[in-house]
Amino acid sequence: MRIGQHTIEAFNEGEIQEHQRSFSFLKEQLERQGFDVERILTQLAELQIAIPTWALGQGGTRFGRFSIGGQPRNLNEKIADIGLIHQLTQVAGRLSLHIPWDIPSQPEESKKLADNYGLAFDAVNSNTFQDQSDQLHSYKHGSLSHVDEAVRRQAIDHNKEVIDYGKMLGSKSLTVWLADGSNHPGQSNLRTALLNTLDSLRQIYDYMPEDWQLFIEYKPFEPYFYSTVIPDWGTSMYLANALGHRAFTLVDLGHHLPNTNIEQIVSNLITFGKLGGFHFNDSKYADDDVSVGSIKPYQLFLIFSEIVQGMANNIGHNPAIAYMIDASHNIKDPILDLIQSLDQIAIAYIKASIIDYKALNEVQLENDSVQAAEILNNAFSFDVRPLLREYRLRNRAPLDAVAFYRQQNIRKLWIEDRGSVVESSGL
Amino acid sequence: MRIGQHTIEAFNEGEIQEHQRSFSFLKEQLERQGFDVERILTQLAELQIAIPTWALGQGGTRFGRFSIGGQPRNLNEKIADIGLIHQLTQVAGRLSLHIPWDIPSQPEESKKLADNYGLAFDAVNSNTFQDQSDQLHSYKHGSLSHVDEAVRRQAIDHNKEVIDYGKMLGSKSLTVWLADGSNHPGQSNLRTALLNTLDSLRQIYDYMPEDWQLFIEYKPFEPYFYSTVIPDWGTSMYLANALGHRAFTLVDLGHHLPNTNIEQIVSNLITFGKLGGFHFNDSKYADDDVSVGSIKPYQLFLIFSEIVQGMANNIGHNPAIAYMIDASHNIKDPILDLIQSLDQIAIAYIKASIIDYKALNEVQLENDSVQAAEILNNAFSFDVRPLLREYRLRNRAPLDAVAFYRQQNIRKLWIEDRGSVVESSGL
Amino acid sequence: MRIGQHTIEAFNEGEIQEHQRSFSFLKEQLERQGFDVERILTQLAELQIAIPTWALGQGGTRFGRFSIGGQPRNLNEKIADIGLIHQLTQVAGRLSLHIPWDIPSQPEESKKLADNYGLAFDAVNSNTFQDQSDQLHSYKHGSLSHVDEAVRRQAIDHNKEVIDYGKMLGSKSLTVWLADGSNHPGQSNLRTALLNTLDSLRQIYDYMPEDWQLFIEYKPFEPYFYSTVIPDWGTSMYLANALGHRAFTLVDLGHHLPNTNIEQIVSNLITFGKLGGFHFNDSKYADDDVSVGSIKPYQLFLIFSEIVQGMANNIGHNPAIAYMIDASHNIKDPILDLIQSLDQIAIAYIKASIIDYKALNEVQLENDSVQAAEILNNAFSFDVRPLLREYRLRNRAPLDAVAFYRQQNIRKLWIEDRGSVVESSGL
Amino acid sequence: MRIGQHTIEAFNEGEIQEHQRSFSFLKEQLERQGFDVERILTQLAELQIAIPTWALGQGGTRFGRFSIGGQPRNLNEKIADIGLIHQLTQVAGRLSLHIPWDIPSQPEESKKLADNYGLAFDAVNSNTFQDQSDQLHSYKHGSLSHVDEAVRRQAIDHNKEVIDYGKMLGSKSLTVWLADGSNHPGQSNLRTALLNTLDSLRQIYDYMPEDWQLFIEYKPFEPYFYSTVIPDWGTSMYLANALGHRAFTLVDLGHHLPNTNIEQIVSNLITFGKLGGFHFNDSKYADDDVSVGSIKPYQLFLIFSEIVQGMANNIGHNPAIAYMIDASHNIKDPILDLIQSLDQIAIAYIKASIIDYKALNEVQLENDSVQAAEILNNAFSFDVRPLLREYRLRNRAPLDAVAFYRQQNIRKLWIEDRGSVVESSGL
Repeated sequence: MRIGQHTIEAFNEGEIQEHQRSFSFLKEQLERQGFDVERILTQLAELQIAIPTWALGQGGTRFGRFSIGGQPRNLNEKIADIGLIHQLTQVAGRLSLHIPWDIPSQPEESKKLADNYGLAFDAVNSNTFQDQSDQLHSYKHGSLSHVDEAVRRQAIDHNKEVIDYGKMLGSKSLTVWLADGSNHPGQSNLRTALLNTLDSLRQIYDYMPEDWQLFIEYKPFEPYFYSTVIPDWGTSMYLANALGHRAFTLVDLGHHLPNTNIEQIVSNLITFGKLGGFHFNDSKYADDDVSVGSIKPYQLFLIFSEIVQGMANNIGHNPAIAYMIDASHNIKDPILDLIQSLDQIAIAYIKASIIDYKALNEVQLENDSVQAAEILNNAFSFDVRPLLREYRLRNRAPLDAVAFYRQQNIRKLWIEDRGSVVESSGL
Repeated sequence: MRIGQHTIEAFNEGEIQEHQRSFSFLKEQLERQGFDVERILTQLAELQIAIPTWALGQGGTRFGRFSIGGQPRNLNEKIADIGLIHQLTQVAGRLSLHIPWDIPSQPEESKKLADNYGLAFDAVNSNTFQDQSDQLHSYKHGSLSHVDEAVRRQAIDHNKEVIDYGKMLGSKSLTVWLADGSNHPGQSNLRTALLNTLDSLRQIYDYMPEDWQLFIEYKPFEPYFYSTVIPDWGTSMYLANALGHRAFTLVDLGHHLPNTNIEQIVSNLITFGKLGGFHFNDSKYADDDVSVGSIKPYQLFLIFSEIVQGMANNIGHNPAIAYMIDASHNIKDPILDLIQSLDQIAIAYIKASIIDYKALNEVQLENDSVQAAEILNNAFSFDVRPLLREYRLRNRAPLDAVAFYRQQNIRKLWIEDRGSVVESSGL
Repeated sequence: MRIGQHTIEAFNEGEIQEHQRSFSFLKEQLERQGFDVERILTQLAELQIAIPTWALGQGGTRFGRFSIGGQPRNLNEKIADIGLIHQLTQVAGRLSLHIPWDIPSQPEESKKLADNYGLAFDAVNSNTFQDQSDQLHSYKHGSLSHVDEAVRRQAIDHNKEVIDYGKMLGSKSLTVWLADGSNHPGQSNLRTALLNTLDSLRQIYDYMPEDWQLFIEYKPFEPYFYSTVIPDWGTSMYLANALGHRAFTLVDLGHHLPNTNIEQIVSNLITFGKLGGFHFNDSKYADDDVSVGSIKPYQLFLIFSEIVQGMANNIGHNPAIAYMIDASHNIKDPILDLIQSLDQIAIAYIKASIIDYKALNEVQLENDSVQAAEILNNAFSFDVRPLLREYRLRNRAPLDAVAFYRQQNIRKLWIEDRGSVVESSGL
Repeated sequence: MRIGQHTIEAFNEGEIQEHQRSFSFLKEQLERQGFDVERILTQLAELQIAIPTWALGQGGTRFGRFSIGGQPRNLNEKIADIGLIHQLTQVAGRLSLHIPWDIPSQPEESKKLADNYGLAFDAVNSNTFQDQSDQLHSYKHGSLSHVDEAVRRQAIDHNKEVIDYGKMLGSKSLTVWLADGSNHPGQSNLRTALLNTLDSLRQIYDYMPEDWQLFIEYKPFEPYFYSTVIPDWGTSMYLANALGHRAFTLVDLGHHLPNTNIEQIVSNLITFGKLGGFHFNDSKYADDDVSVGSIKPYQLFLIFSEIVQGMANNIGHNPAIAYMIDASHNIKDPILDLIQSLDQIAIAYIKASIIDYKALNEVQLENDSVQAAEILNNAFSFDVRPLLREYRLRNRAPLDAVAFYRQQNIRKLWIEDRGSVVESSGL
């Protein structure tokens, strides 16, 4: 779906004057503190977050799902949805495919369609945590780590197939989230599982084209509840190191034990040159997969402060970071949930960009933790929404994407078009 | 399914002599320490654990389910499965119905069938966390706590209907697990949700027959991830107190925040006279619902030590405790998982019965924590399996229920009979 | 220490013009959204946070303490420190005494001194978690919960003595943090410990003057690591209910298990009419006692949103809430740490005051969680520092209290005056 | 203190007959299952746990300490205490020195004394988390990670000095627990702190004699509460890899975030060839440092099962593991607490030695998780106390070390000898 430019302009019209006053005021304040607002606006254009194709439908839990009407029925409709999100936010210029939920039957057409929406294909995602109806071996007891070589082979082949699809679409990376694990002590030989996984990943790694990267996700638990083969960044990085310089660790914010200092993990991975990408979401208890920034916005800001600071002095030679939203939209309209999440990401990034790192480093050298707190707090305190709105305005998007989407009744249009009862693919 | 007695006897035969030696040895050891083994054997017969009708199929997570063949296809087959479990373990003489997953179309017949298996109907369970196809209002935004009176009414009526079914089957209690909650700050008015819930529960409570009890379960999170209306025992007990003397708190072992001292909650609830029942399972991370005793067997022992001690001096006048297993059998054959869980419960109960409480109280009065540890440790150290086996033997069950079930190839028989692909009801 | 008014005015001078521009701009923005800025400024004056007398020295951990020079050497110097903090922030108009660390040898004089600084005495705090050199019985194995009646008697008498001191100083409440607990399973009879505690508290409660309130703090662990007699709000409220209408629960932000939804506890306690007070601090892992708002500022905002909303419609008839900072200033200059903490509290309170609760309630009734998030987020996004600065300005305080304190080199003056090596009382 | 052999024999006499019956019975049972009891007895002799010199006094928390009389007043008295523990348990044949709490003024004499007690010096421990009175630079803002090169130099020199002491005593390893971290976001540059640490460790590593090993401990929090420089095994192993083949990771059981699967970390470290040693204790909430095995004995068993299994097939070429108890004896008599802890370690090790790993591996290859659970459970269920008692008996120690120590009134003798008020060194 593509919104006519005049519709957006009409929507913005009433708010523009007020926006411009706010933006000027903010700009003046920031410039007085020495920040280059125009540069931040330029950098914002480079912050493009991938939307995964499975995120457009209503999510659920093991206890059930309450579906929403108008969900996209196929890959092209999903691309259209992401295209809309990008048009409205200007920070969602990438999409991430999940195989086999969204096998591109006509890759060339899909690629062209995405291109029309200004979208590029980001990392492709494999799935060996569910059985498909046509599958020879079950993944009930694992996939890449399975004790049976035939099952591992099948899972490896699946990943190779995903790479093949990715190549057709222009992707340059594969994300492996390996759910394998065990539910009870003794069920699995922990060492064998790890070594089998390394062997399987090596075959996948070797199959990747030279210009591809492999992202290895980690997660402490769920869907298995005693052990997970790749439970933490340490194991992921061990595997990435063993594979080679094109293998990296991927950080999903929800995949940590309680109280983990995630921003320190980010800092370390950047230092080690092994940070590949992020899956954004938020959580209070476990892998809750709720809206980005809805629970711990300050943590998100601190994570971005490590990114901004670390990538500005990229001693580890990390590649450009691959960002993706990976949440489960159980209650809200998924499109709105994604837009709110993108807003939060952009806000956190902007705030991380107005930390005075030079001053911060100076006070750190003096162990002046009071002043360090003042500096961080100053950046976090600013109301930077006008800066994000200005970015939207300059890129011909609505000043307020949430309000625009609601005003346009887009969900209603989709329900009329696509039906009120749609079976979700994906989770 | 009922196993012929001679089959069991044949199975036991080879092991009996060795068992009797072990049992004599254990008995002598325990009697030397002053324990009445015969009394423990008698008490064990009173420890009857309910099996819920939804536990007989293979469970899953939001990421998928790997099903098992031979699952029961209807209520009567479920009763048959539970009947078998009881025959093999002699500690599963109760079953717990979940409406609407297992609506008894012919209650009299089901009751008679259960009776034939020596089973009684324990608490009935309502479900307002999922939408049923024929339902007028959705529970997407809550049920008993919903902002809309019509939805609350529907949820109340459902609970009344569950009570009606329970009456037909001889149940004497209703368990309410209210999943209602919110996923994001601001989504729900926390106070309104709680007061609405109290009002709804009051109507259900008033509808219950005079000799019924209401059990109010609590859970900190999942399926909602920011707030849950009844997140902890404090809220549950507040509601139970507000309702009256036939309302109680129900403790599900998996429904606690990390590091919670569950045995202290049990002790407190017994002290307050508000302990209604238990849902047994085990967990390492969240509401993992793995096999009872597979992760923290010592905690299970400590919980039973509070039960044994507290109910022996029941100053709060708690009713007999309703026990149920509430786990998700994702990997193991559910029948075997239940048998292993029942074994663990029985073992923990037996060990809690051989704590020398008199000596413990004495050393507690002297603050002798070294000796207190010795006393607890002494009880936990014993290998009490012979005592459980003796109980089985005297009740004409196999000495080793797991081995017996496997030897008899019962799953295979069921697959032949019921088919290898069965749609699970329930989770 | 009292700062001359001209010094403050001189300090503010350079910033006033810029402040006034920012404040006008913010005021206009808020008023356009319907908020009464003047009313918020008035309400801010009512938000007075108590500073405990033990907070003025450098804190430490069990691994050691790195002290700071210039710490106050006696109660009157502590009052002077708090007086300064209040002069600089205008939100610290209360002080909280800890007995026996700060026994007022001349209560009348101390009261007058405090009065001169505009300070009132808030809740007094007892201490039965440490042994004093002149103490007959040790608290090693508990105090109010002790198995020995003589030890309980001593602990009760201590609390009565604390009440007596409080009466002399004008306090109207006693806060009991009962550290009693056990380190190993079996060490303590959990039921006996609870019932002993109730009995002891009843004697303390009965001793309180009619116009006093008792605040019962809870904490899950530390200094004991297996069980704590009052581990959670449920136990605290049980005790408060058993004692009577002048007993309340006190919430210390750091005293919760991982992932606890503290704002929901606050909402519940207000609903039940049992919220007595707060101890503010922040934490990432345990009872870390770090600077308020330094880790989870959004949680602090959500807590205040429950307070503002709940107290505006105080159906439970809660008394005015007693606020106190209870942190351990291990690294920063304690005065600066307290000022930063007070800033964060004021900011959170102001942001909670610009939530549009009417609109929020409306969208909640429509289950519009997207809009609910927008409303909360709108309030949290504003940069409300100008409003706090305006409050300071109108009350003749420095616009920036942190910068002022540093510019004036106050710590240096104190070191010259009080010495560089001072033994802290307290923790 | 050395107990006369006849005293022990007299103590054992009454219990020997009963013991021999129990041992024969257990032996027969285990041999029927294919285990070589004599071999386990031999292996037990190789399980020697170091006692740290700071463990002999009563521990405390930041809230205080309740001391015990008769604590050792100097290094030689500490050696005597450990000698007694070893004589009574026969599994404490090592001691671990902490500098500067226990600087050996006469190393030769101390070494000889230890030798007389059958004790060898295990890893030496440095301390840069506290300031000593004669210290030039403070560690308030870090030591090996400090921003100031002079402070780092001082901390490095301290570690070198510790190595020198260790050399005199026959130690072959240095354990570095680096407490460095930060309390507030922004206080520390996380990357700089890590790189400084690596640089400092390298200098220490290079200073070590060729036959020494370096153990790098990790801990997520405390004494700092926002970040710790070496928070997890991933960071520790990164450092160990960067240093070289004589650097290893050390696992302290209490140094993990909630719900961590510690046994999997152990398995991984063995696989990677980077497991250096253990600090044993137990915990329910944080780094509680309570008695080993008192909270999660099953976890201890699982950890030993990974050790036994992994070291039997040591593909990573790990050196012999260095075991130490590192608990805080706050309530119990420290000697008794250590004896109970040693008992628990020995019991867990014995149970891990009677797992049928061959059968386990076979069922793992068949994904038979039911049988895997049966196998683990079988080993854990045995009452193996007779085996431990037999080991004691054969080594001329009391059958029941706890009972013996109490019967002999040893604490009372020490109080008479050493005084009832002793200042602890250490924590």
